[in-house]
Amino acid sequence: MTDDPRLRVEAALRDFVTVATTDLTDIASELTSVAEAAARFVLDGGKRLRPAFCFWGARAVGAVDSDALVRAAASLELLQACALVHDDVLDRSATRRGQPSIHEQFATLHDVSGWQGDSAAFGEGVAILLGDLYLIWSDSMLATSGWDPAGLERARPIIDAMRTELMAGQYLDVIEQARGGGSVERALRVARFKAAKYTVERPLHLGAALAGAEAEAMLALSGYGIPLGEAFQLRDDLLGVFGDPERTGKPAGDDLREGKRTVLIALAVETADAATRSTIDRHLGNPDLDDQAVESLREIVTASGATTAVEQMIDERVDAALRALTAAGLDHDATVALVGLARAATQRSA
Amino acid sequence: MTDDPRLRVEAALRDFVTVATTDLTDIASELTSVAEAAARFVLDGGKRLRPAFCFWGARAVGAVDSDALVRAAASLELLQACALVHDDVLDRSATRRGQPSIHEQFATLHDVSGWQGDSAAFGEGVAILLGDLYLIWSDSMLATSGWDPAGLERARPIIDAMRTELMAGQYLDVIEQARGGGSVERALRVARFKAAKYTVERPLHLGAALAGAEAEAMLALSGYGIPLGEAFQLRDDLLGVFGDPERTGKPAGDDLREGKRTVLIALAVETADAATRSTIDRHLGNPDLDDQAVESLREIVTASGATTAVEQMIDERVDAALRALTAAGLDHDATVALVGLARAATQRSA
Repeated sequence: MTDDPRLRVEAALRDFVTVATTDLTDIASELTSVAEAAARFVLDGGKRLRPAFCFWGARAVGAVDSDALVRAAASLELLQACALVHDDVLDRSATRRGQPSIHEQFATLHDVSGWQGDSAAFGEGVAILLGDLYLIWSDSMLATSGWDPAGLERARPIIDAMRTELMAGQYLDVIEQARGGGSVERALRVARFKAAKYTVERPLHLGAALAGAEAEAMLALSGYGIPLGEAFQLRDDLLGVFGDPERTGKPAGDDLREGKRTVLIALAVETADAATRSTIDRHLGNPDLDDQAVESLREIVTASGATTAVEQMIDERVDAALRALTAAGLDHDATVALVGLARAATQRSA
Repeated sequence: MTDDPRLRVEAALRDFVTVATTDLTDIASELTSVAEAAARFVLDGGKRLRPAFCFWGARAVGAVDSDALVRAAASLELLQACALVHDDVLDRSATRRGQPSIHEQFATLHDVSGWQGDSAAFGEGVAILLGDLYLIWSDSMLATSGWDPAGLERARPIIDAMRTELMAGQYLDVIEQARGGGSVERALRVARFKAAKYTVERPLHLGAALAGAEAEAMLALSGYGIPLGEAFQLRDDLLGVFGDPERTGKPAGDDLREGKRTVLIALAVETADAATRSTIDRHLGNPDLDDQAVESLREIVTASGATTAVEQMIDERVDAALRALTAAGLDHDATVALVGLARAATQRSA
């Protein structure tokens, strides 16, 4: 057994998914393509940040290292897989991690098989079902992780809040795009639910709750988790506009084509004059935006000072997170790991 | 407190949904429309068959009546709400129980609000998220039903299998339509997973597992549940073609427009000559089918003998279910209730 929690999360996911997909193909051989796509998608990369925060959240409050902890932490990656697959349908995103998204894969299967009906609708339907399966698997992997019932009962309100906030954050995100965006404050609120709580704070709390942490330790973890999670989302906003497609696995300027109403965009809109604002409104959310239009939107965003402002917001939040962490007096090894995770989550290029 | 389990299931659902939707609107006031739609959809009718089978499955093997049992049983209705909302997106169904389906409701909200982007895509996106919420709530309602951890642990493999089979059955159903249907045998297999196991057998087993039933009692319940569940689905097939829209809450001949490849249709195709088969293939799955075409397809199906054959299949299965039930020597009150449920599930007009 390796000591690296990340490799152990991978191994735990692989073990779980192998059994779960076998259960599927045992039902009917026609489910092989779904089972294969499900395994490939979740085992093919991903930063595994949520399992890492969960693992170190538990260790931070004194939990001993165990395979049960690794499995409980890894279950969050299946919840994330649900979120990604459904999110790609919501956003009509054609690619994910440089590969066709699940609904695209099954639309293609429908096409090449010469099946009846609309191939796009078929692909979306399968993606909905596959996302549902991930959600079910996530729940099942946590429940069968090997944690004692008391720990699982302590974890229950946290996982419920986390999943509710995820769906609520997704809805707020969708509605922000539909309404054509608003204040920086509203964009930050979406970031708080969609990322800060879901990606960082709740995973930390889940680990800590499994380990039986007191309220004080929970608060200390929030002091680190909330600003770090916001910084994580702000980095994501920058990558969505300026990221290198080779690294992000998404087309250049993907957030611009999708019309994402991020903090970055809200800041740019806030400082823009009427002419610039009309340029932004005209291009943002146009799925057929060409490279030149992407480049000109990038220039507008940078010229507005929004890019620099967001970089500064990231720095401030990472500083605040690290200050809170250092002051919390948590387990030494966990503190070191959480410092590293703060860097990994906010200095990334993918 | 009333004694009628059905009314108690309603009350338990109402209590749970009231708290869950308040949690939603506490996150952000924009979630009010989702919260209201979520409450309305799940509290607005439904036959509550799955909770009933779960409740009486537990009572059949000797469980005492309790509010915890009612809550555990009621949680299945939230799983069913997820299935219906996602299924309506998959099938592009515009109505459900005589009301606009969830994705239609939110497409309309998008339209009347004058929001940006595609209103149909917005509606589908919200329906995906709302279905996810129901799935999460279902899990949470079972976990917090008040059953002891040992009972919940016995229930775990059953609820996991049930949810996996539901999604697998949905996929097989979608793929049958895409492939343009096949044998009666393949259509029966879809009915087995989508309905027989999911609607009847697994709910019975869930209740029995909570109550700590032995393998023998589980088998006895399957002897009743599987044929009854098939009969339930066959009745559904007939209603999908011949049902009265006033009673079903779905347009007349809805299954024909959706191109559902049911046992009924497979039987009609099997006996059809080349000309009739080409008529069926031409009309089936055409969303714009007019009333005259629906009527002519109905005549073809009935003339083929398929309608009579399906009625006979229903009778045979109900007889088999009742024979197995009577022979099982289960709790008297539960046996009486399960006889009533067999009639309600298979002699219905909606």
